[in-house]
Amino acid sequence: MKFAILFGGVSYEHEISIVSAISLKKVLKSEIVYIFCDKDRDFYLINSKDIKSKLFSSGEYKKSPKLTLKRGGFFQKGLVGEKRVEFDTLINLVHGADGEDGKLAAVLSFFGIDYIGPRVDASVLSFNKLYTKLYASSIGIDTVDYEVLQKGAYKITTPYPVIIKPLRLGSSIGVSIVRDESELEYALDVAYEFDDEVLVEPFIEGVKEYNLAGCKVDGEFIFSIVEEPQKGDFLDFDKKYLDFSRDSRVQKAQIDPFLEENLKKEFKKIYGTLFEGALIRCDFFVVDNEIKLNEINPIPGSMANYLFEDFEGVIQNLSKSLPKEKPIPIEYRYINSIQKAKGK
Amino acid sequence: MKFAILFGGVSYEHEISIVSAISLKKVLKSEIVYIFCDKDRDFYLINSKDIKSKLFSSGEYKKSPKLTLKRGGFFQKGLVGEKRVEFDTLINLVHGADGEDGKLAAVLSFFGIDYIGPRVDASVLSFNKLYTKLYASSIGIDTVDYEVLQKGAYKITTPYPVIIKPLRLGSSIGVSIVRDESELEYALDVAYEFDDEVLVEPFIEGVKEYNLAGCKVDGEFIFSIVEEPQKGDFLDFDKKYLDFSRDSRVQKAQIDPFLEENLKKEFKKIYGTLFEGALIRCDFFVVDNEIKLNEINPIPGSMANYLFEDFEGVIQNLSKSLPKEKPIPIEYRYINSIQKAKGK
Repeated sequence: MKFAILFGGVSYEHEISIVSAISLKKVLKSEIVYIFCDKDRDFYLINSKDIKSKLFSSGEYKKSPKLTLKRGGFFQKGLVGEKRVEFDTLINLVHGADGEDGKLAAVLSFFGIDYIGPRVDASVLSFNKLYTKLYASSIGIDTVDYEVLQKGAYKITTPYPVIIKPLRLGSSIGVSIVRDESELEYALDVAYEFDDEVLVEPFIEGVKEYNLAGCKVDGEFIFSIVEEPQKGDFLDFDKKYLDFSRDSRVQKAQIDPFLEENLKKEFKKIYGTLFEGALIRCDFFVVDNEIKLNEINPIPGSMANYLFEDFEGVIQNLSKSLPKEKPIPIEYRYINSIQKAKGK
Repeated sequence: MKFAILFGGVSYEHEISIVSAISLKKVLKSEIVYIFCDKDRDFYLINSKDIKSKLFSSGEYKKSPKLTLKRGGFFQKGLVGEKRVEFDTLINLVHGADGEDGKLAAVLSFFGIDYIGPRVDASVLSFNKLYTKLYASSIGIDTVDYEVLQKGAYKITTPYPVIIKPLRLGSSIGVSIVRDESELEYALDVAYEFDDEVLVEPFIEGVKEYNLAGCKVDGEFIFSIVEEPQKGDFLDFDKKYLDFSRDSRVQKAQIDPFLEENLKKEFKKIYGTLFEGALIRCDFFVVDNEIKLNEINPIPGSMANYLFEDFEGVIQNLSKSLPKEKPIPIEYRYINSIQKAKGK
């Protein structure tokens, strides 16, 4: 089994995606080709031994072979014609915009490339935090209360302290905790830098947080261990950044087996058929013994490899169980019958 | 102003898209290039004078120049290198899957091509009838009651008569009215042919239906006339098919100006910022003096040209007011600072 790892992308999380790719290189033993999407959305085939952060920050990657994305794959110009870059399954490791907002999912689906990652619908519903709430509520999953503000609005109704998040970003970028009104305007301005819409939620001091990753293979769920992430108030970007480079296994959270069972039940409902093809991480809060979904990471940092005992096995199995596009017959039945009726 | 019309696509509405393109050819005076997406998702540059349904049903279109979609546009191989197909704005006229499910929207956005049509989020929320309901309810727009069934389920709780619709198809394909239990199984099987999930709504006999199309240009709404569509029980595919070929203006519905004003208010809420860049048609029901959204057509048949007095002017103005992607700076700030910290 040969994988391609697609990373980079035009996103605030571009650098994080590079860090994620470097981590997976350390973790995976399978044969891998690396495909980098740069800030101009040009694709480059990166030699595995060159995968170091400096290659990208220095611009040196531009010396690598440029690839063209077309039906069936990525193609490299050769002396005679073009050559397809060989791999069985691509892992979409572009975090944030492009990767998690549905754009690359659509591009890969449209061009018929097999990939591990959320499909278009799953991307749109998990990338936008309001849509995640709507989706969750439609399947009976509880989330934290919220309000959405449009750029220019500075009045909130949620009682302090609150947490302010750009509606469409991951990795804690632009996120602030606001303890009273005096801090509000600045925090909103920071969030509005990144998005025209902002989510406001009550900030729950010392809330219990549990992360659970998993995927569905042949109709059966494969779960990671449950992790209780270590944090201060919350993960800021620098800390989260390091989080994306994790490659060693973590301790299983010491929790009641009953709670663990319930977290898995909630995960299954969320994953449903929507996230088929993806390995996702759900971050849950537990408030007064109630489980609430905090967020869905449809492409978690370094694929949450550190939460799985046999990460490589999971990825290999998942790649054999990807959702297939339903074939649509195109038969010109109506055009033919109308032409017949018209006598043409 | 030169337009490109993109039509075809891998969709049950492939043929309808061809009919739509032929209609627009009759209506628009602007210079237009036609780009056809065939059943293999190969793109062809079609000579305007050859745009006849037979060209496609016969497969003769394959003699036309093949195009490659890349960053910045569609490219045609020439004797020396490649030549970009010249146009200012592309009109996405691919109905149903590919066109309205977000795939082509994402592909066009990813490759930086200016286009009229719904963006990825708008596509996903309007293509899936359940997500449309969730979206509508989140912005205070009323819709008809509903339940969603998963493939294999044959029990409903909605009282008869009901209307059964595949969750993700347009153009009345796979839609049935079911008057009692004896007709249910067959109707569900028909719908399950097209989708693994099915929407069940009460069928409201003789409901008043009103269609309103429009778009936003420089922050101001441009509206079409309100049409009261002529129909029997509902539009079946054959009738709807003819509907896509409409190119002559229709009569304005004889309605209370107060109702018209309210339809426009609802339209504005629905369009919001989500549908910026698209000319959409909202189909409303009026039940007991209450307006309910029936569906959003983000790429209406033949662009609902027949509802506008100056359709060409609308399209030209819209093409100058397309949403721009927010630039995201990629600066390798974190990677550089981490390398510094590590002394590398």
